[in-house]
Amino acid sequence: MIYLSGFHAIEERIKSGLPSRCLLIAKPGPRAREIIKLAQEHKIPINRTGTAELDRLSADHRGILLETEDEKQEGGQITKLEDFINELGEQKEVLVVILDEITDPHNYGAILRSCDQFGVNMVITRKRRTAKYAEVIANTSAGASAWVSAIETANLSRAIEILKDNGFWIYGADMEGEYAFTKDLRGRTAIILGGEGSGITRILKESCDALIAIPKKGRLDSLNVSVAAGVLLYEVIRQRAKKN
Amino acid sequence: MIYLSGFHAIEERIKSGLPSRCLLIAKPGPRAREIIKLAQEHKIPINRTGTAELDRLSADHRGILLETEDEKQEGGQITKLEDFINELGEQKEVLVVILDEITDPHNYGAILRSCDQFGVNMVITRKRRTAKYAEVIANTSAGASAWVSAIETANLSRAIEILKDNGFWIYGADMEGEYAFTKDLRGRTAIILGGEGSGITRILKESCDALIAIPKKGRLDSLNVSVAAGVLLYEVIRQRAKKN
Repeated sequence: MIYLSGFHAIEERIKSGLPSRCLLIAKPGPRAREIIKLAQEHKIPINRTGTAELDRLSADHRGILLETEDEKQEGGQITKLEDFINELGEQKEVLVVILDEITDPHNYGAILRSCDQFGVNMVITRKRRTAKYAEVIANTSAGASAWVSAIETANLSRAIEILKDNGFWIYGADMEGEYAFTKDLRGRTAIILGGEGSGITRILKESCDALIAIPKKGRLDSLNVSVAAGVLLYEVIRQRAKKN
Repeated sequence: MIYLSGFHAIEERIKSGLPSRCLLIAKPGPRAREIIKLAQEHKIPINRTGTAELDRLSADHRGILLETEDEKQEGGQITKLEDFINELGEQKEVLVVILDEITDPHNYGAILRSCDQFGVNMVITRKRRTAKYAEVIANTSAGASAWVSAIETANLSRAIEILKDNGFWIYGADMEGEYAFTKDLRGRTAIILGGEGSGITRILKESCDALIAIPKKGRLDSLNVSVAAGVLLYEVIRQRAKKN
């Protein structure tokens, strides 16, 4: 069972039409009352309960929790990569994000939120989900995990090969790379993001067509990985909006 | 007293040369040992202590804490706006960030980290600092709060007037604005960022020369404010790198 606690996350989950078991309410304020109305419209059962019960279920809530199905339902539609490719048909502009070693669920959630904003078609990650993990992601992503399509795979290298065979250019985010705005990021583009500090693993880095970087003028080593993700996805969308 | 707990934050604080009282160590791992060496080089006293003592001082530590001076010392150099303007002289390219109603210290810290990356010359915020607040900022910013210059003022409107009088163009981040890449953001530029959800307060919005937005292709309403900040600052740096 997963308990969503953020107002945003709860609303987006209900709107997505993905299954929810019930809405648990302790002390509804004005925002929670709107959510109750929304849940009623979507025929989700509403249970009045005590604050102590909510405390037991979630470390961080504001008087309202949405109980949802188990983690298999989280993270948008879990599709196979081949199905995704087939559904693309002749589509020329596609944006895929590959997450390599993003272990912190807060970072993952924040990246998903940016993936929603910039219309990422698919997120590919390593298999490592647990219920607790999915819960943090759903809340941090402000509900984007209900919308953004994601594939989990034990073999990212294989996924990259399949993407290449289907006309994708693979770009790795790396401080040693060339500035992102010097590359043509239109067309079928996949961007690999590595962990903060550690970066992209060597084997995946070698499979990239090019490494791309964000200009740096400061004294610290790196951006937060979710900010770096947002900046690179923005650069793709900027090029597509501007040059087409 | 402020206790920095993040490895990054501690290292950057020591390197900045801003005063630190002592380094508190419980169980040093390899990374902490490097920090001890750094502290010795900077002649900062080192105190061995127990984990229980560190637990008492900080909710979230990894066996090491840096005790620093009180909050007046945080946030880089706290300068007056007039002094900052005078020091600019004839400098043509300047980037200022104005934070309006960014109340969450995690967001503030994350924005400071991006301000460091993109070489922001000055951050202007409302007065609202407390020691606890400064501590979260210092840790979330991965130490950037020791580098990035900041001014606190009770009157942001007045600060904006002074900037305008000195050749700055004021841009407000707003979903209703025009895409950031359609504006010329070189020269003396100030960007106002509002709170997540609430946005920029009406009176400040009216003082903007233009409102700028980030393209949106998703279903959620907004980006995380620190990601939005990173994207807009990147856009400024991209234009300056590309067109000059």
